[in-house]
Amino acid sequence: MSAPTTTIIGEVVRTLRRVAIENVTPEVDGGRFAAKRTIGDVVQVRADIFADGHDVLGAMLKYRRWEQGNCDDGKDDDGAWREAEMKFVDNDRWDGEFKAEALGRWVYTIVAWVDDWRSWSAGLRKKADAGQEISVDALVGVGLLQAAAGRARGTDAKKLTEAAAKLKELAAKDRDATVKSVGDPELAALVNCNRDRTADTRYAKDLVVVVDPVKARFSAWYEMFPRSCTTDPNRHGTFRDCIDRLGYIAGIGFDVLYLPPIHPIGKTERKGKNNSTTPAPGDWGSPWAIGGKEGGHKAIHPQLGTLEDFKALQRAAREMGVDVAMDIAYQSSPDHPYVKEHREWFRTRPDGTVQYAENPPKKYQDIYPFYFENEHTQDLWEELKSIVVYWAEQGIRIFRVDNPHTKPFAFWEWMIAEVKRDYPDAIFLSEAFTRPKVMYRLAKLGFTQSYTYFAWKNTSWELRQYFEEMEEAGVAEYFRPNLWPNTPDILNEYLQKGGRPAFVTRLILAGTLGASYGIYGPAFELCEGRPVRDGSEEYLDSEKYQIRVWDIHNPNSLRDLITHVNGIRRNSSALQRNSGLVFHSVDNDQLIAYSKSSGDGKEIILVVANLDPRNTEASWVSVEPEKVKVGKDESYEGEEYLKAVGYV
Amino acid sequence: MSAPTTTIIGEVVRTLRRVAIENVTPEVDGGRFAAKRTIGDVVQVRADIFADGHDVLGAMLKYRRWEQGNCDDGKDDDGAWREAEMKFVDNDRWDGEFKAEALGRWVYTIVAWVDDWRSWSAGLRKKADAGQEISVDALVGVGLLQAAAGRARGTDAKKLTEAAAKLKELAAKDRDATVKSVGDPELAALVNCNRDRTADTRYAKDLVVVVDPVKARFSAWYEMFPRSCTTDPNRHGTFRDCIDRLGYIAGIGFDVLYLPPIHPIGKTERKGKNNSTTPAPGDWGSPWAIGGKEGGHKAIHPQLGTLEDFKALQRAAREMGVDVAMDIAYQSSPDHPYVKEHREWFRTRPDGTVQYAENPPKKYQDIYPFYFENEHTQDLWEELKSIVVYWAEQGIRIFRVDNPHTKPFAFWEWMIAEVKRDYPDAIFLSEAFTRPKVMYRLAKLGFTQSYTYFAWKNTSWELRQYFEEMEEAGVAEYFRPNLWPNTPDILNEYLQKGGRPAFVTRLILAGTLGASYGIYGPAFELCEGRPVRDGSEEYLDSEKYQIRVWDIHNPNSLRDLITHVNGIRRNSSALQRNSGLVFHSVDNDQLIAYSKSSGDGKEIILVVANLDPRNTEASWVSVEPEKVKVGKDESYEGEEYLKAVGYV
Repeated sequence: MSAPTTTIIGEVVRTLRRVAIENVTPEVDGGRFAAKRTIGDVVQVRADIFADGHDVLGAMLKYRRWEQGNCDDGKDDDGAWREAEMKFVDNDRWDGEFKAEALGRWVYTIVAWVDDWRSWSAGLRKKADAGQEISVDALVGVGLLQAAAGRARGTDAKKLTEAAAKLKELAAKDRDATVKSVGDPELAALVNCNRDRTADTRYAKDLVVVVDPVKARFSAWYEMFPRSCTTDPNRHGTFRDCIDRLGYIAGIGFDVLYLPPIHPIGKTERKGKNNSTTPAPGDWGSPWAIGGKEGGHKAIHPQLGTLEDFKALQRAAREMGVDVAMDIAYQSSPDHPYVKEHREWFRTRPDGTVQYAENPPKKYQDIYPFYFENEHTQDLWEELKSIVVYWAEQGIRIFRVDNPHTKPFAFWEWMIAEVKRDYPDAIFLSEAFTRPKVMYRLAKLGFTQSYTYFAWKNTSWELRQYFEEMEEAGVAEYFRPNLWPNTPDILNEYLQKGGRPAFVTRLILAGTLGASYGIYGPAFELCEGRPVRDGSEEYLDSEKYQIRVWDIHNPNSLRDLITHVNGIRRNSSALQRNSGLVFHSVDNDQLIAYSKSSGDGKEIILVVANLDPRNTEASWVSVEPEKVKVGKDESYEGEEYLKAVGYV
Repeated sequence: MSAPTTTIIGEVVRTLRRVAIENVTPEVDGGRFAAKRTIGDVVQVRADIFADGHDVLGAMLKYRRWEQGNCDDGKDDDGAWREAEMKFVDNDRWDGEFKAEALGRWVYTIVAWVDDWRSWSAGLRKKADAGQEISVDALVGVGLLQAAAGRARGTDAKKLTEAAAKLKELAAKDRDATVKSVGDPELAALVNCNRDRTADTRYAKDLVVVVDPVKARFSAWYEMFPRSCTTDPNRHGTFRDCIDRLGYIAGIGFDVLYLPPIHPIGKTERKGKNNSTTPAPGDWGSPWAIGGKEGGHKAIHPQLGTLEDFKALQRAAREMGVDVAMDIAYQSSPDHPYVKEHREWFRTRPDGTVQYAENPPKKYQDIYPFYFENEHTQDLWEELKSIVVYWAEQGIRIFRVDNPHTKPFAFWEWMIAEVKRDYPDAIFLSEAFTRPKVMYRLAKLGFTQSYTYFAWKNTSWELRQYFEEMEEAGVAEYFRPNLWPNTPDILNEYLQKGGRPAFVTRLILAGTLGASYGIYGPAFELCEGRPVRDGSEEYLDSEKYQIRVWDIHNPNSLRDLITHVNGIRRNSSALQRNSGLVFHSVDNDQLIAYSKSSGDGKEIILVVANLDPRNTEASWVSVEPEKVKVGKDESYEGEEYLKAVGYV
């Protein structure tokens, strides 16, 4: 193993390739990982392209769909490449683009060359302008045309031969006509097309961009426990009940309905209400304790309904523009069929028992993690993949993945790529609330969206610092934040203590700072803020362990505000992308001000939020025109979309 | 050609390697180029190292000298690697180091792994602390020891077998002793040494750092035309005269004496005084019009002396700590022997003449550039390399390379690596005043030092912006600026119009902003500021075309200031490195304030300079303690090294 530099020592490398191609964007970790875009995006590829000396250069972006060039024989099918001319911007930076017109993996690279003809003709013009003798120089051009003719075929060869003869003739008699004729752009293009391509520099790497469906970038998620779709805490909600709830969910503007695991729940070591280890007979258990005698990850909890009911829910949802997202939690309850049938996928303790989940000194006896570090890992990987494929076959395209940071990186990279090869519209949301580098790595490995620390970023400084970090070019290429003010696991102190104004503020922040966001409802819109105990982020009477009956028609619900925010999002291209976020100066630390702008810069959404849920705050906000790319003397119109005061 | 990501599609990759290694520094352009250090430096290697989950990791920096692992058979000699433990810093960042104790290329990479033993023992301690039952857990540890024993040999195997037996015994009867025994660091190291290395992650690249002599980083250059070492403009100075001048040069503190080309000068198309195209009979010509009937790039201009004289100059200089630097200008006068003997190394125009240098509409008929784009380039490369090798054989180690940006990049990468393989102490200074990306590329390709735009950065804003750009981690790894306030080609407006105070300021800026700097003397210390005409940066009566007699004993010379500055530099480790530069706030745009600190932070040099050569300026300077890494309550002593006012 050795770095590319090493090859130049001890052996003589001769090359006529004069052009250097550097600093290509997008390029994640030197090409090790793919960048991400959504369908219909124009993929802008930029690079520093330059050669020694002062010659005119040419550069071409080459791109193709993955499948078209990567056959089973591993050979690169050159015919599949399409080309787009790159343009010089400034400071040796060049710019090219292609349209991501299909889902899946696209490959791109760059080819650049010294444009001998344009270099020569530019020199000729300068000499002519300076009144210098050019007849000998003109013959150099004749030579270039003849050489190109020698490389060309068919009509190209004929045209170039004729052009050479014509230039030779002109050079001998008509100086002005000579200069004029060499400026012909069609001729320049023809020479270029027939240049000596052995001197072309091709960028050393073929880079990859994954093109996802639009919801990968712009989505509004609503998490709901289907068993709580009921009016009676003793009656288990069903998929049919969920269908009745769809009108509400779509009506307030969400387009992803995410359900916690819908599989049979284990009985052994089942947790009771409020995470009690001594459950009452009627307790339902945690949906994340997957697997019982009724089946495992490919089965449906009988009390929710049948597979047909689940498909009916999906169909009804899709008719309203809503996708149903499933939870993928790779773990088993002690009653999961795997435990009997595939004991080798679990770790056995020296006393012969199965190793349950631990984070010493904490123990989770109701959860058996899979064991990835023995010789059975190959079968295990295949089985875990088959779970996702199974649900994809049942119509599911969005997967929220539980705790991916506790399973091997290599598994995710393989599994997601495998699934997306057949289902390029699949979306994987990474639920990894862990160290930043691990969260980013999971996104690089293929996760489409990622939960973030948003729930714990509540002050102006924290929010600004965190979003500026995620906006950085390097991170933004592969990491798409999905902002959740609450989840069934996270009821943060700000919501617990801030009451309704805190919920209002957090909703607006989530919906405007991130192109994708989600709420765990109806807890959120009903401003449920009671923790199980002081200092805990767990809910009192958490739905993780029991059925909760929610009055979604409660007049105090935030449903109107949510509908309003989701409506603004739907009509704003600025809010539908993660780039274009700029923070503005405010004198008061309790206020935060930022704007998001659309790609064309024509739309700017300005948000000013009061982070203090208790007091009215006031301050001057400075919006510097150059920060939002408004020209100094440009005029613009403002419109107030939403005044949240009315909702507090 | 395909990116690494591509290999995961369509084939099943299974791996037990759980650790990710990312963001390694130093690493230039993804490992394509080498980083640079100087001998004796401690090379700090950092990386993000992490795995899934929460296990304890181990990491090792592997390093070796290039030659020890790269035999002719191309195989990697694993025995040559040395190892240094890496330490966790924070946020998944790890740190390791090795000492660059020999010149030449060093290779390094990283190996990391999950430390099963330490992960397990940390868990055991936590459980014990929480009062939990640990006897079954202890047996897991016994299994780890047994597995390690199975992999180990000799005494290691014996020790591990004994440790396993002992732990098993303790686990059954003594809880406290069990916990204590598994905390033994020697045992942990032993288990680690005998870990299953197939699960180690090795960083995908072997990276390279080039270790140069100290003068590559810290040097003070004095450029002088040897023919002007005379008291009579009609008597051509000689190397012997230069020997007499050495005491002066070393005495004012310079350690590199750089001579413009010392080769025979062509007569055809020779330029006269002030670049006249109609030279007078006695005109000497430009030293850069290399080659005459007396020889070419390997010959010495007879009027300067003999090869023996030149060697005597080198010897005398070295005794005073001064290295003689040669000019490598790859171009020929029309009279160069190459033109007759190797016409194929030049471009022939359609009229049969040799193509002279051009930058249309400018023509340089006295200079023939080499032609790198035909089938003879292989011989040409070898010949050009042989010039440097020839002079290296004559004792020269420092080469100032003229206009490298007009020759192919691939040539430089090859030539410099070839020469430095045999002469690892060779230093190449790149004289490329061209676009920034090209200047940086040349440094990446192997140039040891680089001229900069310093001469044209005269305002506070320009200086700050430019030096902050060069201080950036990415650039600083490979680009070593060498700052010149003047050269024979550059007499900028600031010096022309600012007079003596301008020279004083620029000297102090050059000597303190850059670890390497140089002046073109005696023009500089004698404050020569007359241009050939208004608006030109060329000197009047430029030494490029004629002999100038300089009175180095002139009482108005800046020699004392220069001696003072060079003396401070020699005693200051802060001024001997390019990092550690920080700019400080000043209210007055005419002033600039900055500090440089030593690697250990113990020495801080503060410079406040007045950029207005005409007026006295005053302002408050704010030096924030945290910017110079002085603790809030730390005390420090200041000493005034130099008050330049006395020199103005």
